[in-house]
Amino acid sequence: MESQNKASLPAMDGFERRVASRSEGARTCDLLLRVLALVLTMAAAIVLGVAKQTKVVPITVVDTLPAINLPVSAKWHYLSAFTYSVASNAIACSYAALSLVLAVSGKKGIMSIVIVLDLLMVAMLFSSNGAALAIGLMGFQGNSHVRWTKVCNVFGRFCKQVAVSISLSLLGSILFLLLVGITSLRLHKKSK
Amino acid sequence: MESQNKASLPAMDGFERRVASRSEGARTCDLLLRVLALVLTMAAAIVLGVAKQTKVVPITVVDTLPAINLPVSAKWHYLSAFTYSVASNAIACSYAALSLVLAVSGKKGIMSIVIVLDLLMVAMLFSSNGAALAIGLMGFQGNSHVRWTKVCNVFGRFCKQVAVSISLSLLGSILFLLLVGITSLRLHKKSK
Repeated sequence: MESQNKASLPAMDGFERRVASRSEGARTCDLLLRVLALVLTMAAAIVLGVAKQTKVVPITVVDTLPAINLPVSAKWHYLSAFTYSVASNAIACSYAALSLVLAVSGKKGIMSIVIVLDLLMVAMLFSSNGAALAIGLMGFQGNSHVRWTKVCNVFGRFCKQVAVSISLSLLGSILFLLLVGITSLRLHKKSK
Repeated sequence: MESQNKASLPAMDGFERRVASRSEGARTCDLLLRVLALVLTMAAAIVLGVAKQTKVVPITVVDTLPAINLPVSAKWHYLSAFTYSVASNAIACSYAALSLVLAVSGKKGIMSIVIVLDLLMVAMLFSSNGAALAIGLMGFQGNSHVRWTKVCNVFGRFCKQVAVSISLSLLGSILFLLLVGITSLRLHKKSK
């Protein structure tokens, strides 16, 4: 009996070591995704936050008079969808920093809160991406049915900055989606 | 020893019964949320899908001539954000029906797929809600900076139908969010 126990001990140790190493790997992956999400959402908020372009365009004030050249500016806070996008990315970036601290502590009770907040970030970021993309596309293409003319032919640089910001934000939100997905699947596997 | 075992048996049975009843309750709640999500996303897709309004509005073709009264229509597929919203809700509705069948089977392997697909529905629905809400608000308020005039003063009924559809879709997406959240927290609790 004793020799049997001794023989099974190294096997148990090896198994435990594999489990511990896998758990450590999952934790490193989790922290890495959070750092990347922090960087991407911060970059998305900054790129859109500093986006500004001023152009001199001919504007007709009275139909019978010739058009007057006036400077017109494009700023992110002129459109509520872009304001929502900057705010969402700033919140997600701040939360990513906070969640890094919480995830390092690794306490089970705190991790429940992290799971819920990760999920809320997914919802918030995807809705802001949808809003910014819808308004961005409208500015790029315009729409003849509602008579909204495209503005990206005038504010080309501003539109490019918006496109970069939306792409960064989309990548950031995919990282939050991955965080929730990986955590859920790992917990599902554990519960088997 | 035998009497001790006998005494502990009813206690174990009671515990197991409680666990089984809690698990049954969680499953019923899961199925109920899926049915509700199915109904809400289906309603959202139908309300926006059938939304249509035609109005006779004065349109100026040549500046020097008086405006001509022409019939103008508002339809969901004139705006890509609304097309995305109808498509997303139709996909989410079909998936909710499929997930009901999958969730009833309750197989662990299949449940991993359900968790991933639930999460993808959250991302898809929230992005489509963001897009539809951004365009809907633009139609309601307009924006002087980009010179996009509001259209809801002309197409009032159409705008109301859009608002109802967005509200229904938002409720449906919150249900999918709840499904993912509840499942993750239950699995997290189980893994303790």
